Amino acid sequence: MSVGLPVETLFLDARDVARLVASRGVARCLRDLTDYLHSDFLRWPAFEKAARLASHSQEGVIELMPISDGLHYSFKYVNGHPRNTVAGMPTVMAFGVLADVATGAPLLLSELTLATALRTAATSALAARHLARRDCHRMALIGCGAQSEFQALAFQHLLGIDEVQLFDVDSAAMEKLTNNLWDSGLRVVPCADVAAAVQGADIVTTITADKRRATVIHPEMLEPGMHLNAVGGDCPGKTELHADVLRRARVVVEYEAQTRVEGDLQQMPADFAVTELWEVLADLKPGRQDDAQITVFDSVGFALEDFSALRYLHVLAQALKLGRLVSLVGAAADPKDLFGSLGLPTSGESVEQVLEALAHA
Amino acid sequence: MSVGLPVETLFLDARDVARLVASRGVARCLRDLTDYLHSDFLRWPAFEKAARLASHSQEGVIELMPISDGLHYSFKYVNGHPRNTVAGMPTVMAFGVLADVATGAPLLLSELTLATALRTAATSALAARHLARRDCHRMALIGCGAQSEFQALAFQHLLGIDEVQLFDVDSAAMEKLTNNLWDSGLRVVPCADVAAAVQGADIVTTITADKRRATVIHPEMLEPGMHLNAVGGDCPGKTELHADVLRRARVVVEYEAQTRVEGDLQQMPADFAVTELWEVLADLKPGRQDDAQITVFDSVGFALEDFSALRYLHVLAQALKLGRLVSLVGAAADPKDLFGSLGLPTSGESVEQVLEALAHA
Repeated sequence: MSVGLPVETLFLDARDVARLVASRGVARCLRDLTDYLHSDFLRWPAFEKAARLASHSQEGVIELMPISDGLHYSFKYVNGHPRNTVAGMPTVMAFGVLADVATGAPLLLSELTLATALRTAATSALAARHLARRDCHRMALIGCGAQSEFQALAFQHLLGIDEVQLFDVDSAAMEKLTNNLWDSGLRVVPCADVAAAVQGADIVTTITADKRRATVIHPEMLEPGMHLNAVGGDCPGKTELHADVLRRARVVVEYEAQTRVEGDLQQMPADFAVTELWEVLADLKPGRQDDAQITVFDSVGFALEDFSALRYLHVLAQALKLGRLVSLVGAAADPKDLFGSLGLPTSGESVEQVLEALAHA
Repeated sequence: MSVGLPVETLFLDARDVARLVASRGVARCLRDLTDYLHSDFLRWPAFEKAARLASHSQEGVIELMPISDGLHYSFKYVNGHPRNTVAGMPTVMAFGVLADVATGAPLLLSELTLATALRTAATSALAARHLARRDCHRMALIGCGAQSEFQALAFQHLLGIDEVQLFDVDSAAMEKLTNNLWDSGLRVVPCADVAAAVQGADIVTTITADKRRATVIHPEMLEPGMHLNAVGGDCPGKTELHADVLRRARVVVEYEAQTRVEGDLQQMPADFAVTELWEVLADLKPGRQDDAQITVFDSVGFALEDFSALRYLHVLAQALKLGRLVSLVGAAADPKDLFGSLGLPTSGESVEQVLEALAHA
């Protein structure tokens, strides 16, 4: 009989990921992730892609987001439960796995709530580098929830934004964001309403959480050359932009098949033209075409972004020696002998006797 | 700001599950699981069902198998890589998660390689209780791989089988199974070929591993009243039964939509009649109709079975106080303040300074 290798998986729990991000620094993590995302988006045709698999309930949604490039396979588990915060639980919780396609062995199991916020912000910044004007310095930030600081910092460090005009229906959330960013170097300006926050902004980031058809941004708020980073409209029935905003803009999406169902794009007819982000990054299609153009990145979050994040976490955790090895799958000493590897019924006693003895050992 | 509850997940690694099964005993686990499976199959219409999501490569397949009954959501990650054993790794490795639909919080993360073998065997026995003749005592077991002992013990303890006639192309595998079961109370008879093993058997269990269109059981091997428990033909291109065996039999499947693609049923036209197991268990359709009938359970493994197994492991692990709590998702003290919960940029120093300090702490 062959002797088996122990299949071990690196496990990063929530604390490990927080330490990892603290060690590397939020700004550097955002920069690193943008590089990982860029290189993976350029390999777009190499990926086996599928829309996420969603299980909807009255309270929210649980999704699985798998993807593979033929060498690595990854999936993310993520929920969205808007009313969780009432009970003191996060709206969004996530974890994911990076596996070896050649053997199916899971290499990394990682908490992904924080990484989801980071990769979403990094993807927004990556898109904006190709869609926003070059001279941007002021961003409107509509929605000051759990992901808002990461968006603000990504645009500060990757786009050169130095002023953020905030609005949230919950004034405590605005206060939280202002406090969290007070020493960031960003000028943070709370505003009385969405229109005031958007006025004079080069970039408008919407990241609201209501699971309903909302119209946060109206066409009359648009100014020439604005780039809209629409992050919060990300599942069926949940939108942020008025349809006329999309009609007036050049619209870029991550994965068209998914965004037509989940994005603000869900409001538009099936033949409404969009461009996929990877085509812009690969110079196959133009990004922004002139300084007056309105551009929209209709972001919903795609499995490739979690693939990039998991690859990054795997490399960084190994470099920083964070996390621990666990036997998430199989521990049979002989892979053809699962039963015998348990060491149970090989003595002269009856199976039940051995098991009872073990139970009381 | 609201103060968050820590979201903790019970984690059972490979060793925990092995200890759990040892504590309870294989035979009792098989009986318990059969009860869990029975009660879940009876609730069949309450489940949100989908075929598994498979990612195929040259070397094998990686699958996600989600399901929900509106209260609990579960998924299993499982691979199938036939050549893994050459490198000393298991062909099949699995883990899964049981989550709370109301909040999306993962309740249990568990290794499932051993549990997959147990639930597959328990499902086979559950089906056979309704499809095999009442007076069965001899089973043919074709394929003596990692799952074979569990099939033998399930049929011993749940169907009253006392004799097993074995065949495997690998004589070492037959020897392994014979050794593993020598004190089980089963009479184990290695045979020279499939025909010899099948001859005189009341039940024929096929659980071969080759990923190809094989024809292990031919029509001339059939004897009146035989029940075929066809477990190994479970993905596109992988079969075990000659088409004429299916034509001569009453065929029962787990989930028709999936079995038409993955089971031995893949050889048959779309209108070939089959019955779903839950209909038989619920007395909506007959099982075996007479003592001479040939019956086939074309088993491919369905997500509901892993749902049952995860529910069972969760209850048993809590009762036996096995496993440990991990923060698989989110550790933010304030769910609306992921960034602030990291405790990073709230001092008077610059963000980078604080991060650097933490990095060297």
